[in-house]
Amino acid sequence: MPRYALLLEYDGTHYSGWQRQPDVPSVQGAVERAIFGCTQEEVSLTCAGRTDAGVHACGQVAHLDLSRTWQAERLLLAINAHLRGQWVRVLKVREVSPTFSARFDAILRHYRYRIAVRRATPILEHQRVWQLYHWPDIAAMREAASHLLGYHDFSSFRDTQCQARSPLRTLDRLDIIETEDGLDIEVSALSFLHHQVRIIVGTLADVGKGRYEPEAMHRILSAKRRCAAGPTAPAYGLYFMRVEYPEGAFGIA
Amino acid sequence: MPRYALLLEYDGTHYSGWQRQPDVPSVQGAVERAIFGCTQEEVSLTCAGRTDAGVHACGQVAHLDLSRTWQAERLLLAINAHLRGQWVRVLKVREVSPTFSARFDAILRHYRYRIAVRRATPILEHQRVWQLYHWPDIAAMREAASHLLGYHDFSSFRDTQCQARSPLRTLDRLDIIETEDGLDIEVSALSFLHHQVRIIVGTLADVGKGRYEPEAMHRILSAKRRCAAGPTAPAYGLYFMRVEYPEGAFGIA
Repeated sequence: MPRYALLLEYDGTHYSGWQRQPDVPSVQGAVERAIFGCTQEEVSLTCAGRTDAGVHACGQVAHLDLSRTWQAERLLLAINAHLRGQWVRVLKVREVSPTFSARFDAILRHYRYRIAVRRATPILEHQRVWQLYHWPDIAAMREAASHLLGYHDFSSFRDTQCQARSPLRTLDRLDIIETEDGLDIEVSALSFLHHQVRIIVGTLADVGKGRYEPEAMHRILSAKRRCAAGPTAPAYGLYFMRVEYPEGAFGIA
Repeated sequence: MPRYALLLEYDGTHYSGWQRQPDVPSVQGAVERAIFGCTQEEVSLTCAGRTDAGVHACGQVAHLDLSRTWQAERLLLAINAHLRGQWVRVLKVREVSPTFSARFDAILRHYRYRIAVRRATPILEHQRVWQLYHWPDIAAMREAASHLLGYHDFSSFRDTQCQARSPLRTLDRLDIIETEDGLDIEVSALSFLHHQVRIIVGTLADVGKGRYEPEAMHRILSAKRRCAAGPTAPAYGLYFMRVEYPEGAFGIA
């Protein structure tokens, strides 16, 4: 059976998250339905990262098996034609090895969290950025971020509903980049706990507001309890940007 | 009577354009209604550039007179509170001289036209960018643009409905900037003819597709007829970015 990998973009605002669920719109459900529409095959997609309700993606990757072979280009156009009216599109299709897994072969996942610093509600970036009313102390946020880099028990930075067996994770990147009107927080790791990026962002924002000293990150990590960290930043600021696989990033290029 | 200047952001998708009209939503109407809501004064706004339906603004400027004095900060918060549910916000308020005109004192108007080059319909930038399916020849577009810079009769680049007395305008800037996933066309002038930026962009895109040689711009200019130029690019790619006044730009900073 030929296996295909899809590169996907979606606006998370319109979905209850990646995962198919009865009676609510999901990204997985929308794409699987579109694939059925053009192939008449009931497929089950496996994705690199199951995003929550409201979280966006520029570079989600998912794989599926079909019983007959499609030219990648034709499959892309066919699925997108059946996605009309939905808030998700296929950016790229590639035939992959029948053993490839979008989920288990991923070696690095990249997220971006976008913050706009402004007084008025964002209009042109409505549901695209988290609004902060005042400039945070970026130097303090960067120092706090440096304490979270690397291998740690992130129990304080995962949702109480998180089902991962181990709270141990390695953060490979946690950069704070100033933009024209705010900041982007760039986060990379092999894998993440539930809400980990959003709790890290919420906690860094609290540091930026002066509610914690950067050194408090040590205490928060060692507390190993969700209530020790800051709030969960809203979903709509978060973007699943890119996934890397051993043979290179599955980019748009 | 104290006069105030407002810096405005709006999503043009939701409005029939800047100008107040009966029975259709307009930016002017929405802001004037919000001002009435908080001041009980019926004001008439004068703006720097009356944008068309679908055109966005990050930096529109408008002025109004009130019978009583407001602290600028309080006025900003009050108007924005009354703009809830609308797709426009006040970014800044400044008390200005009673002789200031947002329209007649402007010395330079800056527009940006955003193009995304991609196969799939834009999702995260829906109604925010014009989609081209293939990379245009940017060098050819830049050469064509150079022929439009400066003082010309732009009759070929104005809508047949344009009511400006003279078709003579001076283009001070027409830059094509490559972005991550497309191009931004940056255009600056003291003033523009109706649809001038969008017709320039549509014509440059035709050059980029190889439909015209860059030198054709001379022929198009001297034809002095709308039908000599290319199509009008769609409104939703256009942003009114910034207005300059003798005492400096009325920016967000």
